Amino acid sequence: MTFAEYVVEQQIRVEGALRHWVPLDSTPPESIHQAMRYSLFAGGKRIRPILCIAAAQAVSDAAAGIESAACALELIHTYSLIHDDLPALDNDDLRRGRPTCHKAFGEAIAILAGDALLTLAFQVLTQLDCDPNRKISLINELAVASGTVDGMIGGQVCDLEGEGKHPTAALLEAIHRAKTGALLKASLRIGGIYAGADDDQLHALSCYGEHIGLAFQIVDDVLDVEQPSEALGKTAGKDARQQKITFPAVYGLDRSREMAEQERLAAHLALRPFDERAERLRELADYIVRRTA
Amino acid sequence: MTFAEYVVEQQIRVEGALRHWVPLDSTPPESIHQAMRYSLFAGGKRIRPILCIAAAQAVSDAAAGIESAACALELIHTYSLIHDDLPALDNDDLRRGRPTCHKAFGEAIAILAGDALLTLAFQVLTQLDCDPNRKISLINELAVASGTVDGMIGGQVCDLEGEGKHPTAALLEAIHRAKTGALLKASLRIGGIYAGADDDQLHALSCYGEHIGLAFQIVDDVLDVEQPSEALGKTAGKDARQQKITFPAVYGLDRSREMAEQERLAAHLALRPFDERAERLRELADYIVRRTA
Repeated sequence: MTFAEYVVEQQIRVEGALRHWVPLDSTPPESIHQAMRYSLFAGGKRIRPILCIAAAQAVSDAAAGIESAACALELIHTYSLIHDDLPALDNDDLRRGRPTCHKAFGEAIAILAGDALLTLAFQVLTQLDCDPNRKISLINELAVASGTVDGMIGGQVCDLEGEGKHPTAALLEAIHRAKTGALLKASLRIGGIYAGADDDQLHALSCYGEHIGLAFQIVDDVLDVEQPSEALGKTAGKDARQQKITFPAVYGLDRSREMAEQERLAAHLALRPFDERAERLRELADYIVRRTA
Repeated sequence: MTFAEYVVEQQIRVEGALRHWVPLDSTPPESIHQAMRYSLFAGGKRIRPILCIAAAQAVSDAAAGIESAACALELIHTYSLIHDDLPALDNDDLRRGRPTCHKAFGEAIAILAGDALLTLAFQVLTQLDCDPNRKISLINELAVASGTVDGMIGGQVCDLEGEGKHPTAALLEAIHRAKTGALLKASLRIGGIYAGADDDQLHALSCYGEHIGLAFQIVDDVLDVEQPSEALGKTAGKDARQQKITFPAVYGLDRSREMAEQERLAAHLALRPFDERAERLRELADYIVRRTA
């Protein structure tokens, strides 16, 4: 199976699991379930769930049901996009080529839909078919990675408060590590824990996760400068207009591209303890750096 | 110990546990932790945590550490108040006699502080000192009670969408059961599960929880009509102005008061399987109906 085929296969698997876990559009109260599904099924690339599945596969052939754990990551990611797009935060009208959730359903429902996806992520994890102690580890990983102390919400706060400030390398690193990095790293760790990774494997997955997390954010920032809105499916050039602290703002475009490539290589090195079962993770590192949207 | 002394003792216990679990004001990023603590330590009555503790005590003398599980309920309750008060939802400036979270910290931080309290509730539950299977049950109870299908968020959606509609008894019941009832009932069930309740005890606690949940909402609606803002610590008379579907709107004040009294009696009946260890739950039912704020 080619890498492209692998990605499509995992996307279909994640899609099916998400459809299983999220209440139908017709479940009352309909509006909130419609809003949740509108944002969840908007053509997201499912990078976090696929990283989670690939991490589980690197550890063990027998990680059945991993797609449900992977769903929890996509639920958290989608909630964070909905809340991030709100007028009080990034005030974005366009996401994945369509009106953002609050543009389509109103602000009140968008706030509640985000809350609901966040809540559902934890509900899904309680219902996994795996060892209870392992399940609690997964829930803890997700909560910490989504939280305020070195987690996603903490990163969003630093990002908000950094707008307009002098962009320094230290501030940039603190923002990226928490805002995008924590959940990407948790995607790897959750896959690993689910599949029964030992400490060395979990350490290697964390290390890989940190490098691809950094690479992912650098490439995101570069694409925001280089690509038109149509290619991105979201409003391009916003970072500069909002005076966000980005890699191109601190290092320039050329140096940023070099840094992404270095992170890609470091991610490959981190996977040395793994055999060929980690091949998909290696390909994912390449994909994350070389993508154009 | 009198009931009043018992309540103060439990409030102090819950307060201590909350201070333990919520990052300090000085933990970076400071603004979000300040906002979380601002709303959490605003003089809330801690009714949900106290119900949780009293339910555990009704089941077993040996429910050490229950105050941490009880914290999760207050974290969820506080997040729901912060998001409910936002301009896009109830647009309230006053809560517990002070500016609401978004008035004090801005809308962006208020949205994220709500998200953070919700996330932290699950994190706290993963770290309890109890049997892992029991822990997973607690997390599942909390997630379902907070969710969209017969849970708190679902109730908020019905409440929002009911504004201005003809107030019917069926719509009123659906709103209250989910919006306030689900989390109150979960408070009892979480206390019971933590303390190792058997099926009969858990059923009795659920039944008690449904009755006091209904009583609580009726009294809340009545107080909104009868009491001045200063006594409530929030803007009084808002329900009528927002054309909310309330018990006084459907049944009138006198009948609403009678209904609250009936629910109080039904709550007492539900506790018949319990001995004198459920005395605090009985007193709590009386308190909930007879309170004036």
